[in-house]
Amino acid sequence: MIPPPEIIDFFKKEDNFLISTHLNPDGDGIGSSIALSLALNKLGKKTFLICHDSIPQQYRFLPFQEEFFIIKSGSEDELMRKGFKNLVLIDCNDIDRIVDKGKENNRLFDFFSSLYSVVIDHHETEKNFGHIKWIQPKSAATGLMIYYLINNLSVDITEQMAINLYAAIAVDTGNFRYENTSPDVLLIASELQKKGAKPHLIYRKLFEEWSRNRFELFLKIINTLEIVGDIAIIHVTERMFEETSTTPDDTEHFVEFPRIIKDVKISALFREIKEDYYKVSLRSKDEINVAQIASSFGGGGHKNAAGFRVKGSLEDAKKIVLEKILRYLSHQ
Amino acid sequence: MIPPPEIIDFFKKEDNFLISTHLNPDGDGIGSSIALSLALNKLGKKTFLICHDSIPQQYRFLPFQEEFFIIKSGSEDELMRKGFKNLVLIDCNDIDRIVDKGKENNRLFDFFSSLYSVVIDHHETEKNFGHIKWIQPKSAATGLMIYYLINNLSVDITEQMAINLYAAIAVDTGNFRYENTSPDVLLIASELQKKGAKPHLIYRKLFEEWSRNRFELFLKIINTLEIVGDIAIIHVTERMFEETSTTPDDTEHFVEFPRIIKDVKISALFREIKEDYYKVSLRSKDEINVAQIASSFGGGGHKNAAGFRVKGSLEDAKKIVLEKILRYLSHQ
Repeated sequence: MIPPPEIIDFFKKEDNFLISTHLNPDGDGIGSSIALSLALNKLGKKTFLICHDSIPQQYRFLPFQEEFFIIKSGSEDELMRKGFKNLVLIDCNDIDRIVDKGKENNRLFDFFSSLYSVVIDHHETEKNFGHIKWIQPKSAATGLMIYYLINNLSVDITEQMAINLYAAIAVDTGNFRYENTSPDVLLIASELQKKGAKPHLIYRKLFEEWSRNRFELFLKIINTLEIVGDIAIIHVTERMFEETSTTPDDTEHFVEFPRIIKDVKISALFREIKEDYYKVSLRSKDEINVAQIASSFGGGGHKNAAGFRVKGSLEDAKKIVLEKILRYLSHQ
Repeated sequence: MIPPPEIIDFFKKEDNFLISTHLNPDGDGIGSSIALSLALNKLGKKTFLICHDSIPQQYRFLPFQEEFFIIKSGSEDELMRKGFKNLVLIDCNDIDRIVDKGKENNRLFDFFSSLYSVVIDHHETEKNFGHIKWIQPKSAATGLMIYYLINNLSVDITEQMAINLYAAIAVDTGNFRYENTSPDVLLIASELQKKGAKPHLIYRKLFEEWSRNRFELFLKIINTLEIVGDIAIIHVTERMFEETSTTPDDTEHFVEFPRIIKDVKISALFREIKEDYYKVSLRSKDEINVAQIASSFGGGGHKNAAGFRVKGSLEDAKKIVLEKILRYLSHQ
């Protein structure tokens, strides 16, 4: 993968950069942003890491994550006064992905729109934002793109960059178990380890640091498992969150768990948002396209991971969704 | 890693090989044996894959696993009549690891002892068996050694070899999450993928093909969780196996699960063998040495994974073990 020359030129010529990843940031967005920022600093450039939302707990081990300026904290004016001219979007491709659309943010929107903008992302998009765009939907993670970019800027990868990039790649490939794990992914992971990233420690920090409360929530949810044909269904209620002092964030990845059962082709998690209103997350194996099912409910997503909302009692919601899935599977 | 010249010479000069892995074979032993056999076949050599025990279900997807001749099936004489002169031990380093010590096997022991023997293993040992020994305790998997060996024999790695070697390495590194994941491991995984191994499919076959019964058993066991200080304790009874139509093999890796909780330093699984008699498996994080705890009960294992047996009711057994662990931790 070779970065376009205009990206290289841009980073070489300019000397200050606002670097932002997306709302509800994940490991790929955070790690990629930090690694790029550190590399630009090595070239003597000024950078400023920003994010609308705060850094989730599981990414607080990443070197320099504390450098992120969190927009939500109410310091927009401070940000706008800093005099940055260039905006780099990492792991996303439009301003509405880096700042909430609420009215109170109109000034921020205008501010970001006034900057010279560069997009570096691996998400498929039909949007056309950005003066320079480098979008590689075939790349498993934005972290891979940043790895090539840093190499092409002739900056040596430091241990701090390596940890951030390794984590970015590990998150987006499910620690090398998703279909996007390419020979490139494994090769670069090997290179990053040589530069100081420790696979077992990064794995533990990313995937094995559950709180006891989260584990309690997991038990409650997994005990709701019902299997109908090839479909596994679990649910979580507001009350379960209360009983375990947890939040919806704590359910991350839970919907994937029942896929461990050989016969299960689709796994569904129903999360109570309020009485008679549920968020449904779907995960599937191989060729089963749950995005199609989600879109028929007005939702969206990817082939193997999608979601939507549905009204009704838990019983009714499950019934409606199950019928739709069974109809879909019968046409496979 | 470079194989010793006498190993290369041996495989080049000789023309027939019995290749055996250990009792209760695992992915590293099975995959490494098959890959080596296929490579030797490419050189026009005759090979015969043998194993005392049958191939576990999760490894039945490996190409050519059906070629294994299972000794336990009572066909020792057939094996001995085949006229092989060379014995290659894979992922183990003595005859007592490839055949049960029972009296009825004396003839087999003598037969194996009469052959010219080569040991290829990554387990630390003080034994001195084998006319040629290649033992690399620092190698994450025997599969890595076989990869280098095949390359040094100048055989092109085929897709079938690649799948077997990738699986071998994935099993022994916990899909690249254990401490033994070295830059070499990731680099060779990348090479094997280029040769045709598909990481996501191999991951699924190895780790995500639970039966529904096994999942039921998991739920029962995980619901027994108690946490005392830094220690997580789960247990499984004979009755749970009966209720879910499962066997002790189905508990593989379950003891590791509670380590997902951040505060948990040691995880223990008590498995009822018969009334008032339990097998205890321990897993630990980092520097906590559960082998020491196990050996104080007459058991053994490695620093982070060990086991032993203990008499008494479940309650008493837990109490005795817990006291010992707490005493150990208080001296840390």
